[in-house]
Amino acid sequence: MELADYLLHDEPFYRPVGNEVHLYEVAYAARMPVMLKGPTGVGKTRFIEHMAWRLKRPLVTVACHEDMTASDLVGRYLLDSAGTAWHDGPLAVAVRHGAICYLDEIVEARQDTTVVIHPLADDRRVLPIEKRNELVRAHPDFHLVISYNPGYQSVLKDLKESTKQRFGAIDFNYPAAEVEAEIVAHESGVDMAVAERLVRAGQRSRNLRGHGLEEGASTRMLIHAGRLIARGVSADEAFEMAVILPITDDPDIRSALREAVAALS
Amino acid sequence: MELADYLLHDEPFYRPVGNEVHLYEVAYAARMPVMLKGPTGVGKTRFIEHMAWRLKRPLVTVACHEDMTASDLVGRYLLDSAGTAWHDGPLAVAVRHGAICYLDEIVEARQDTTVVIHPLADDRRVLPIEKRNELVRAHPDFHLVISYNPGYQSVLKDLKESTKQRFGAIDFNYPAAEVEAEIVAHESGVDMAVAERLVRAGQRSRNLRGHGLEEGASTRMLIHAGRLIARGVSADEAFEMAVILPITDDPDIRSALREAVAALS
Amino acid sequence: MELADYLLHDEPFYRPVGNEVHLYEVAYAARMPVMLKGPTGVGKTRFIEHMAWRLKRPLVTVACHEDMTASDLVGRYLLDSAGTAWHDGPLAVAVRHGAICYLDEIVEARQDTTVVIHPLADDRRVLPIEKRNELVRAHPDFHLVISYNPGYQSVLKDLKESTKQRFGAIDFNYPAAEVEAEIVAHESGVDMAVAERLVRAGQRSRNLRGHGLEEGASTRMLIHAGRLIARGVSADEAFEMAVILPITDDPDIRSALREAVAALS
Amino acid sequence: MELADYLLHDEPFYRPVGNEVHLYEVAYAARMPVMLKGPTGVGKTRFIEHMAWRLKRPLVTVACHEDMTASDLVGRYLLDSAGTAWHDGPLAVAVRHGAICYLDEIVEARQDTTVVIHPLADDRRVLPIEKRNELVRAHPDFHLVISYNPGYQSVLKDLKESTKQRFGAIDFNYPAAEVEAEIVAHESGVDMAVAERLVRAGQRSRNLRGHGLEEGASTRMLIHAGRLIARGVSADEAFEMAVILPITDDPDIRSALREAVAALS
Amino acid sequence: MELADYLLHDEPFYRPVGNEVHLYEVAYAARMPVMLKGPTGVGKTRFIEHMAWRLKRPLVTVACHEDMTASDLVGRYLLDSAGTAWHDGPLAVAVRHGAICYLDEIVEARQDTTVVIHPLADDRRVLPIEKRNELVRAHPDFHLVISYNPGYQSVLKDLKESTKQRFGAIDFNYPAAEVEAEIVAHESGVDMAVAERLVRAGQRSRNLRGHGLEEGASTRMLIHAGRLIARGVSADEAFEMAVILPITDDPDIRSALREAVAALS
Amino acid sequence: MELADYLLHDEPFYRPVGNEVHLYEVAYAARMPVMLKGPTGVGKTRFIEHMAWRLKRPLVTVACHEDMTASDLVGRYLLDSAGTAWHDGPLAVAVRHGAICYLDEIVEARQDTTVVIHPLADDRRVLPIEKRNELVRAHPDFHLVISYNPGYQSVLKDLKESTKQRFGAIDFNYPAAEVEAEIVAHESGVDMAVAERLVRAGQRSRNLRGHGLEEGASTRMLIHAGRLIARGVSADEAFEMAVILPITDDPDIRSALREAVAALS
Repeated sequence: MELADYLLHDEPFYRPVGNEVHLYEVAYAARMPVMLKGPTGVGKTRFIEHMAWRLKRPLVTVACHEDMTASDLVGRYLLDSAGTAWHDGPLAVAVRHGAICYLDEIVEARQDTTVVIHPLADDRRVLPIEKRNELVRAHPDFHLVISYNPGYQSVLKDLKESTKQRFGAIDFNYPAAEVEAEIVAHESGVDMAVAERLVRAGQRSRNLRGHGLEEGASTRMLIHAGRLIARGVSADEAFEMAVILPITDDPDIRSALREAVAALS
Repeated sequence: MELADYLLHDEPFYRPVGNEVHLYEVAYAARMPVMLKGPTGVGKTRFIEHMAWRLKRPLVTVACHEDMTASDLVGRYLLDSAGTAWHDGPLAVAVRHGAICYLDEIVEARQDTTVVIHPLADDRRVLPIEKRNELVRAHPDFHLVISYNPGYQSVLKDLKESTKQRFGAIDFNYPAAEVEAEIVAHESGVDMAVAERLVRAGQRSRNLRGHGLEEGASTRMLIHAGRLIARGVSADEAFEMAVILPITDDPDIRSALREAVAALS
Repeated sequence: MELADYLLHDEPFYRPVGNEVHLYEVAYAARMPVMLKGPTGVGKTRFIEHMAWRLKRPLVTVACHEDMTASDLVGRYLLDSAGTAWHDGPLAVAVRHGAICYLDEIVEARQDTTVVIHPLADDRRVLPIEKRNELVRAHPDFHLVISYNPGYQSVLKDLKESTKQRFGAIDFNYPAAEVEAEIVAHESGVDMAVAERLVRAGQRSRNLRGHGLEEGASTRMLIHAGRLIARGVSADEAFEMAVILPITDDPDIRSALREAVAALS
Repeated sequence: MELADYLLHDEPFYRPVGNEVHLYEVAYAARMPVMLKGPTGVGKTRFIEHMAWRLKRPLVTVACHEDMTASDLVGRYLLDSAGTAWHDGPLAVAVRHGAICYLDEIVEARQDTTVVIHPLADDRRVLPIEKRNELVRAHPDFHLVISYNPGYQSVLKDLKESTKQRFGAIDFNYPAAEVEAEIVAHESGVDMAVAERLVRAGQRSRNLRGHGLEEGASTRMLIHAGRLIARGVSADEAFEMAVILPITDDPDIRSALREAVAALS
Repeated sequence: MELADYLLHDEPFYRPVGNEVHLYEVAYAARMPVMLKGPTGVGKTRFIEHMAWRLKRPLVTVACHEDMTASDLVGRYLLDSAGTAWHDGPLAVAVRHGAICYLDEIVEARQDTTVVIHPLADDRRVLPIEKRNELVRAHPDFHLVISYNPGYQSVLKDLKESTKQRFGAIDFNYPAAEVEAEIVAHESGVDMAVAERLVRAGQRSRNLRGHGLEEGASTRMLIHAGRLIARGVSADEAFEMAVILPITDDPDIRSALREAVAALS
Repeated sequence: MELADYLLHDEPFYRPVGNEVHLYEVAYAARMPVMLKGPTGVGKTRFIEHMAWRLKRPLVTVACHEDMTASDLVGRYLLDSAGTAWHDGPLAVAVRHGAICYLDEIVEARQDTTVVIHPLADDRRVLPIEKRNELVRAHPDFHLVISYNPGYQSVLKDLKESTKQRFGAIDFNYPAAEVEAEIVAHESGVDMAVAERLVRAGQRSRNLRGHGLEEGASTRMLIHAGRLIARGVSADEAFEMAVILPITDDPDIRSALREAVAALS
């Protein structure tokens, strides 16, 4: 099987926060395209890895960006010794071989990328490869998943209505404190007391969102801090390096964050 | 026949809402180019599939986008072992072999794409392939169809008058409630009572259009909700996943939609 | 002769409205470049086809657009088995073989396209092909014709003075009512009474120009309506499909147009 | 000699209006680059053709435009059966073989085009071909000439100071009435009385410059009118076709121009 | 080993100003991606060279810029005699062979560049090479480091939150006076008295930041001045050439800087 | 030696105005990159030619422009009969073979060009050629020089701080009157009296800078006028052709300049 590299052999750690696992399974059974909505660093990518492992399907992930073209997804002709030969892009590979195709932050891509998935995202389930005059019917196991961060969209850069309406959606957000601490402890190797303190500090940073911070500390950042602590860095230094310095350059916000952490000790 | 892949063998389900089938047949008989106008998700694509099946013509569909060039439609030279060889694009294929060519959301394309169809969309019915100095006369069965969503156009992005005036137009809109329920029931597998409740919820969402919602729930979204219900998801969860979460990120609009649905139970 | 495909064998129907045929013949005799000015759908393209047929010259038509480059007109090197070979573009073909070259809506093209015709449009009558360091002297029968829609130009997109001053101009406009009815009857197959009613309806739509309509119904649209009527569609439905729906999405303008037509019955 | 095609064998008609022929000869003797300044259609191109003929040098003319790149002037690698081979562009050809290189409306070109001429336009007289790491020393007879229309420049599009300062300049303008009539008569074949009337009409149009007209009738346009008259078109129709219709779409300006001509009869 | 050229054989001089060496070592042990933040010329590049030497890892440095594409980092197909062959870009080379990859001023790059590092900068540690449908798992020694100058960012050009949150950060700033003098003396060859005077002059220039100067003199500029002095240039001339003239064109600021230096003699 | 073409065999005439020759020699000895600052036409290019001749180093000059890319400087793969072969660009040639590389008006270039010189312009003295994964260490004699015209910069187009801080700078300006007259006389062949009069006229034009003139007459323009006079053109005509007409199109400024010259006779 061509996609063996894309099968996940070990269960990716994922701590459910609601019925998202069940809803995804039903959507997959109906082959309804799915949109994962939520801020950065709350586990959308980990979730889809977990689901691909549960469903035993290869997972083809594409990080979208504003210079990505339809050809980057669908494929292109490349020169070889016999002239040109067609090479499927990652989307075409997933469509032919029945993988889950995860388009991360699709809203960043140019419109040709979003339009190219339309005939795959309705009952037709076909991928027209216009450069080859080929109409690829999707493998029965193919599933289309996209992610979308509502905080990032602007008037100029949003999904078209005709794209949004093709997807069922699952919301993601920061997990409840005890769940998040469990995740931080599991992933970083610190004990629960340290993890809980990191989570409380993270929550305080999230309260500053909109008051000078574009976003608060994500779960990923708290795990980073935990990993530094687990290697002997002091809690203050670890929070400084993993959260405060990356997240803002504003001296006042930095002070506010430091005080918030200090008050927790 | 080169276009066998593009023939529809099974009748695509289409529930007429007026005399659109007859008008299309007359326009096809006169080979008058046709423009399908209406919002997303009301069945324009399904309609043209249905007509292609009725008329037993292959259907070549092209999803237009802002990075599409005339070459993507007409064709290009590709390198092979003997140098370059010409490969017809989807429009040229349809023109030569007598297919219906459906350019979906043509207003998204760059102007060179719309201009390239002008000589095909008047009495000349020719496609000049300038890169080959070839003038292709259209196959007698060739028919040109475009779609157009009036809600999307802006001053910057609209069809030119000289394009619009080449097409007869058919309007599409949300079907009447009983018709829409019939469609939802047929496509999703829920019974009529559930389908009617979904349609009433959908209509309420459409009343919010312009009051925070760019567009209301399309028929396609109601079918999505029906399919989740048919697989055992509760009606509230299904409407949440298939309609509310994809359509808006605004907490107030989401609440309004939830109340509208709850009031229907 | 290489341009046999571009010769018109049957007389294209053209109903003169003034002395435009004579003026064109004199300009052709003097090899003075000609600009056809007027709104869309009044017969500029048909006129030049008619003149090409009268003068027994091949006609090379190029629909200009904003992505067209000088190379699209002049030619380019293409790879073949022996490396690269030069392929003349449509303008170079017309220049070498003495065709009439008709550049439709040249104002849409990028400036390099308009500049490339300058040395062809004065007494030099040469086409410099810089990529080949070749200076092609025009065939004695070559004639350069462009079209120009005065309603479309903006400050940003207009012909340069140095281009305009190279052309003699012929104005086109909607024909007088009786002439237009004759044209509609001839082209669509309806009788004169129906044609006259269509023309009166068309004239009313033209009065709405500037009051919500960008342009009124062109002669071409009236012919479309006639063709639908000739195939059994009712006059109201035909005018709706061929004129009202394509020309505007505004419900008030649509009502005004419908009333204007109804008042004529 | 490679540039034989670019030698002018017949004297191009040029009627001097001042000491421009002498000044050009001195500048050529000093190999000082020359800029021809003036509005469109007053004979800048004809002047440089005349000078090339007088000096018996081949003339390479390049019409500049905003999509022209340095490579279009200098040259590029083209594929042939043995891989790639270098092909000189028109500027490189002129530099190597000692032609006069006339860059028409250089201000239209992108900056890389103007920068590429800098080392040719000072005492170095070299053309660096960076793609070949070659430094071409100019042939002793090479001369660089550019044209420049002061009316066209804007803040965004003007020659850089460092370009302007490399050129001596010669001003061109509409010739005095008797000289212009002589030119019109010579070039169009009408007698002096008709030519004088055309010139007076042209002068009136020039008075409207800035009052609705971007530019008045050029000498070229008056010659056009004369040629139509010489073929039997009436003076009014000829002025209408050759001057009024091309130069403006404004009905009031058109009336003013017609009255100006009528008053002359 | 393919990256032998990229190993540093001699210890690069680096004078620590805090615990940055230790923090980097912990982050490297955890393979946590690191962001070096601070103004230009304070030693970020020297620091990473020093760390690469300490850790005995090859260092692949890429200076990012706004025309850099993902292909410049990841690789591309190049033609050779057998058709096309894949050539890894510098990031892919570092990923496969376990180098430290230092992306200098990544914020200058286009978004596709920043997005391409996302799957390398979280627990997946993979580089998807979409053009080859290859998923490269990072060598265990691979480490990702970026630099970021907080003073340069604007609303239009900043790292995305989803990028920032993947990195631990280390702050860099101008060193304390005695440390900086030590560095200047060591690098330029002047004695400590001269170095201290240069550092005091540099500090005064930094006080003008925001009062007409975008940035003050960096340590690098003071070293430049020192090197001129060590070769016999007077202190005033050296400071003029190495600091004042490059940093500003404003005569008043230049005077203020000169006075500041003079007052120190 | 590959760069023999780039060695200057005859001493380029350069009249020093201060200690710039000595400062450059010290900077070259320290291999400190140098920035030549000053308006157009005051001799920056001639100075660097003179220094290259003094130091007996080949001089590779690149005129920068806004379409220049890093590849134009560094090199690119070109197709030949055996596939692709790498061709060094002018910067890479200078780096490998120890030339002085003079990037004229580097601020005009795109950012990738300025970023590519960063590792060459600090102590690393390396040129990473990313397309080849090659790290070229600079030849010991390599020296990097750029020019910069302070009058041209805008907020949008200026060198980055991190670029400026890598260079020592030398200021250039119009020479004192007696020096400038000496230069004009030497270069144009007129006697000192004429040269002095030209210099006084030039100085008056420089006083108009900011009062309608973007820049005054450069030394180069005065030399142009001198050369015309030396060939028999009258002083007034020569100043008109070489200074007044090229420098401005404004009739009032032209009159002011003419009066200024006349007053000198």
